[in-house]
Amino acid sequence: MKSIGVGLVGSGFMGKAHALAWNAVKPVFGDVPDVRLVHLADAAEDLARRKADEFGFERASGDWRRVVADPDVDVVSITTPNRFHREMAQAALAAGKHIWCEKPMSPSLADSELMLASARTSGKVAVLGYNYIQNPVIRHIRSLLDEAVIGRVNHVRIEMDEDFLADPDAPFQQRHEASNGWGALDDFGVHPLSLVLTLFGPPARVMCDMAKPYPTRRTPEGERAVEVFDIATILMRLHSGASGIVTVSRTAWGRKGRIAIQIFGGSGSILYDQERMNEFQLYLTADRATEQGFRTILTAPHHRPYDRFVPTAGHGLGFNDLKVIECRQLIGRIGGEAALAIDFEDGILIERAVDAAARSFREGRWVEIG
Amino acid sequence: MKSIGVGLVGSGFMGKAHALAWNAVKPVFGDVPDVRLVHLADAAEDLARRKADEFGFERASGDWRRVVADPDVDVVSITTPNRFHREMAQAALAAGKHIWCEKPMSPSLADSELMLASARTSGKVAVLGYNYIQNPVIRHIRSLLDEAVIGRVNHVRIEMDEDFLADPDAPFQQRHEASNGWGALDDFGVHPLSLVLTLFGPPARVMCDMAKPYPTRRTPEGERAVEVFDIATILMRLHSGASGIVTVSRTAWGRKGRIAIQIFGGSGSILYDQERMNEFQLYLTADRATEQGFRTILTAPHHRPYDRFVPTAGHGLGFNDLKVIECRQLIGRIGGEAALAIDFEDGILIERAVDAAARSFREGRWVEIG
Amino acid sequence: MKSIGVGLVGSGFMGKAHALAWNAVKPVFGDVPDVRLVHLADAAEDLARRKADEFGFERASGDWRRVVADPDVDVVSITTPNRFHREMAQAALAAGKHIWCEKPMSPSLADSELMLASARTSGKVAVLGYNYIQNPVIRHIRSLLDEAVIGRVNHVRIEMDEDFLADPDAPFQQRHEASNGWGALDDFGVHPLSLVLTLFGPPARVMCDMAKPYPTRRTPEGERAVEVFDIATILMRLHSGASGIVTVSRTAWGRKGRIAIQIFGGSGSILYDQERMNEFQLYLTADRATEQGFRTILTAPHHRPYDRFVPTAGHGLGFNDLKVIECRQLIGRIGGEAALAIDFEDGILIERAVDAAARSFREGRWVEIG
Amino acid sequence: MKSIGVGLVGSGFMGKAHALAWNAVKPVFGDVPDVRLVHLADAAEDLARRKADEFGFERASGDWRRVVADPDVDVVSITTPNRFHREMAQAALAAGKHIWCEKPMSPSLADSELMLASARTSGKVAVLGYNYIQNPVIRHIRSLLDEAVIGRVNHVRIEMDEDFLADPDAPFQQRHEASNGWGALDDFGVHPLSLVLTLFGPPARVMCDMAKPYPTRRTPEGERAVEVFDIATILMRLHSGASGIVTVSRTAWGRKGRIAIQIFGGSGSILYDQERMNEFQLYLTADRATEQGFRTILTAPHHRPYDRFVPTAGHGLGFNDLKVIECRQLIGRIGGEAALAIDFEDGILIERAVDAAARSFREGRWVEIG
Repeated sequence: MKSIGVGLVGSGFMGKAHALAWNAVKPVFGDVPDVRLVHLADAAEDLARRKADEFGFERASGDWRRVVADPDVDVVSITTPNRFHREMAQAALAAGKHIWCEKPMSPSLADSELMLASARTSGKVAVLGYNYIQNPVIRHIRSLLDEAVIGRVNHVRIEMDEDFLADPDAPFQQRHEASNGWGALDDFGVHPLSLVLTLFGPPARVMCDMAKPYPTRRTPEGERAVEVFDIATILMRLHSGASGIVTVSRTAWGRKGRIAIQIFGGSGSILYDQERMNEFQLYLTADRATEQGFRTILTAPHHRPYDRFVPTAGHGLGFNDLKVIECRQLIGRIGGEAALAIDFEDGILIERAVDAAARSFREGRWVEIG
Repeated sequence: MKSIGVGLVGSGFMGKAHALAWNAVKPVFGDVPDVRLVHLADAAEDLARRKADEFGFERASGDWRRVVADPDVDVVSITTPNRFHREMAQAALAAGKHIWCEKPMSPSLADSELMLASARTSGKVAVLGYNYIQNPVIRHIRSLLDEAVIGRVNHVRIEMDEDFLADPDAPFQQRHEASNGWGALDDFGVHPLSLVLTLFGPPARVMCDMAKPYPTRRTPEGERAVEVFDIATILMRLHSGASGIVTVSRTAWGRKGRIAIQIFGGSGSILYDQERMNEFQLYLTADRATEQGFRTILTAPHHRPYDRFVPTAGHGLGFNDLKVIECRQLIGRIGGEAALAIDFEDGILIERAVDAAARSFREGRWVEIG
Repeated sequence: MKSIGVGLVGSGFMGKAHALAWNAVKPVFGDVPDVRLVHLADAAEDLARRKADEFGFERASGDWRRVVADPDVDVVSITTPNRFHREMAQAALAAGKHIWCEKPMSPSLADSELMLASARTSGKVAVLGYNYIQNPVIRHIRSLLDEAVIGRVNHVRIEMDEDFLADPDAPFQQRHEASNGWGALDDFGVHPLSLVLTLFGPPARVMCDMAKPYPTRRTPEGERAVEVFDIATILMRLHSGASGIVTVSRTAWGRKGRIAIQIFGGSGSILYDQERMNEFQLYLTADRATEQGFRTILTAPHHRPYDRFVPTAGHGLGFNDLKVIECRQLIGRIGGEAALAIDFEDGILIERAVDAAARSFREGRWVEIG
Repeated sequence: MKSIGVGLVGSGFMGKAHALAWNAVKPVFGDVPDVRLVHLADAAEDLARRKADEFGFERASGDWRRVVADPDVDVVSITTPNRFHREMAQAALAAGKHIWCEKPMSPSLADSELMLASARTSGKVAVLGYNYIQNPVIRHIRSLLDEAVIGRVNHVRIEMDEDFLADPDAPFQQRHEASNGWGALDDFGVHPLSLVLTLFGPPARVMCDMAKPYPTRRTPEGERAVEVFDIATILMRLHSGASGIVTVSRTAWGRKGRIAIQIFGGSGSILYDQERMNEFQLYLTADRATEQGFRTILTAPHHRPYDRFVPTAGHGLGFNDLKVIECRQLIGRIGGEAALAIDFEDGILIERAVDAAARSFREGRWVEIG
């Protein structure tokens, strides 16, 4: 593969993140084909044209089907709202394109299963945008777990908290409608679940609680019942027998991008917080007793692929850099490498865990994941 | 009341803490009666005699009943293992003594209810040793909540973690037997529950999970099944409707005395960690948007009664100082003040929550607390 | 200006950083001309060719003079070792090119003054690579100071510490020779001095101490005296009368990219640490007394131009992103904007402070900066 | 020695701290004689009487000479303002008493030398109240340095900052007069110097700068020039050749009791902050490269004598507990033990360093310490 032709559908938050990644992946990594930015689509053609100019795409369109049909496009980045994912992914796969689809797969487990079936049929690479697992810190934690540096893991806690829905006086929004799914569980919960999956494999059974911090919100006409849950907690058992807690909130004032992980093993512990994404903490019982403590470890070139961005320790990657790594993994997969990425095969495991959690909540009991 | 006669039963960890508190309470606070250290009992008379000398008690005995019967004793500190609490408390109350009994009330809810009944009958002050609520930080957080500085609370998380049972290779101990109760739930869980009670009132319903990180432990003869649970998690709903999580572990390597509290409200959040007991964090949406952040607030004389220990800010109290404050509260209660303390009336609410949590775990469902 | 033609000299650490910035500046900011990557030079032509391919440059050369002479090049990035800066900068300016030259200007104050003279003569934009001042956090701190949010500043401390020369057993390197300058003072010290300059203006007088943690280093033949100083401390007075300390070390084990700033004012304080570059701390006496504390403030879209990278708070920029901002400032200057950047006019003030500090050290006394 | 008779002069901040320590030392440590609280003096007799009652002293007096003359008194705690130290210490020593005198020795080096001479003549124990060195953390750091765990120390920084004089609008106080000495240098600087002395021995030469953040202060009549310096910085060389910085400020908003220590060695580093006095940080190059980081180590029973206060790790000592340890050291010295304490022989080294620093500041040059 001498070059790779890229199509991009959507140019908002995630669309821009994909565009930045496609621009940076070769200068950062070097060892990839030339990236040709072919075709960008967004709902409005003039917006698409402006963004194509900014992001460096050759062509622009107001119709995503033209990107999918473009013969120069090898891979399609899908960054539209979740409810469009199934249709676009299936069309792109059917057209013989690889896809890089933002998480989650879709708002419905049935649709997600259809997406998986299409990917299998197509034989194309279908990777999901679970960027947090690409952090060199997370990748290093994964290798420490594989090495059993902290022994056998017996307990895990992951909290994911933000505050963009924390204001009780903010008005009712479209996202408060049930058509968006459960709320925090599927919107946020999939991120910690992607980390659980990457670090430990899928959960075996779950018990979920959800809460509505603000059951009603004001509208121009008065009050309206909020239909989604901004807080969700999943108690879980992993197949290893370890117990775990995943808890997510969109109403946690002061939390901006917190994903706090605590992993406890037989001979040590690991801590991480996404708000300080360039460090993690490690406690080892192998250290001399009088000097045991959590080490705060800054990322450095030996935490691959940090070295591709900066050759000296402690200088820090940013959120967008994770997407560049994800892009490199996608290209690796296209080239046949066994690159770390959550593809549709793995992504469906996350969707099934979400579905089981929702059922557990409705029924007030533990649910096994098939 | 010109002076107060003190009896102490038990001279171990908590016995010493009580002794230090009784020695310090007048020099620290000034505004209390003279404290007369009358009688100390421990299981072995020579130990009792030695400790009486060290702690400054006049008399020593190998029989706790002699302390209870001593006419110069006004208040009895009970610091023996939990299974002795009921008998000692009832005897002391029957003898007309006030009591200061270490937490929890007893390993059995039925026994705890009997203790409450005895306290009611006696008309004496019966205070439990829930020292963490006495931290000036916690007392100040309580006043901030009363003031609604962070608005209406919608979510609470409390983690209590230590690592004294975290070594999988450590042998089976007596504390791994079921006769000790559930394990982390009643041994540890009562501390976070005392904080929930003090800050928010008792939970309305609970859903509990427990786990055994190390299901078996070695004995001189081989392996033996561990009968208690070193990890427990309680999902809860407060009467206010707020959701909460209490999770406790005795196998969390690196955690030494962690009690991490997160409180989220409509206009701010509060964080606290017992391992840094002289500070807390506060986020306020009232701050200018571009400078909103968690403030790390160090204790200072205006956080009462820190001022009784040190007249300048940021100089720090220690664990034993909390016991001195608790002692002052007890004396206040004896003198008829409405002092903050968890007496048997409040303590039974904690025991009932523990009992409901255990039932919830056994039955795999939510349990309402009567 | 419809497009801007870029030449790059050097393709190592900083050369790659420039290349990444030139690739990203338009996708990130949008409001800039097309960037055309024209010509890359490095000492070896094959290396230059490989890097040109990776970074996206059209042409490659083993001779930097061909970049300077290339008519399609409008601006030259100079990222070679410091001792080459003067010659390259003067040649590029003489050829009518704008320049973006890595810090510091040169190892000799006399040469730096010549560079300034050339820039003045040319009328071209000549910007230095002081990237740390471009952090949205630092830019926001600057605006807080301008607003006098913490009142009149009376004291400043900046520490810059790394550990790449901390190993006493590492062998003598070329960088231990006096031909490289003073050592930490001019290699590192210019970074904190760039922050002093940006936030407060240049120092008025300085008193400097330097130290050699390891006076000798091993060579294949034995031991050799280290000729540079790995630790330097500058006491200073600002023109405002405020006192300050700048201290730098290259032998501080555990410090990887620490630049710790402490600013004390009449009504508050500001703290920052480059190792956690996406946050800063602010203490305000305007807060209610019982809740005063250092706020940890995470970067967010309102801290410009963070918003150009990510539209949500707390998601974090990386080291390379600062270079993209610096690149945008350079383009702004070329377009006539009053963009924040340290050009040769400002850069010379840093060089003069370094020179005065060195003199102060030699003479053991305070030195006024002319 | 069966019991020890205590006299206390002064009942303010430090007087109370001494009283608390004398009350606690036997219950905490056990292995000391009975402590008999004999005689308390303060300037006003009724205050003395009230405090004697609170603190548990048998006798009270408005004249400190009566304490010194009391035949039941074996040791005199001197906690009055610094200008009274010399006269009281000399009188007590002449009367054959041991003394526990608050730091510093006196405002004048000549007077301090006289105090030392009297102590030598008397043959009595004369210990100074440098409590921070008694923290189990500091004592453990000392043992780590002795063990060369971080190799040979090459650089040290100590900052001591508080904010009680940080308000520019606060009026002129008596402490702004030159009669109090230099200001931050001798009031605060002695604390970090006591740490330098304890950890590394006395400095060999010093270069000092001092600053007045607010040169004038308002009085009822107008403005008055401040005669002391609220900020002081001492550059130093230790006898080992290591370089160091001690910097102190009384106008650092937000700092309440900060004493931040940074120690850099050939194979690691140690960090400490008095505001979090129950932890320290340790970086070791002996750790595996990919997991090197600063460990945050919580105090625990193996950090002696923490175990005498609490038998479990991470539960925290407070400021007053340090005084209890200091008291135990004093009693040890009286009993002939080689206990860690700063006596007049060591204290004079601190006073001489302060004196040399002041001379250095006046003369704008480095000063050797004789």
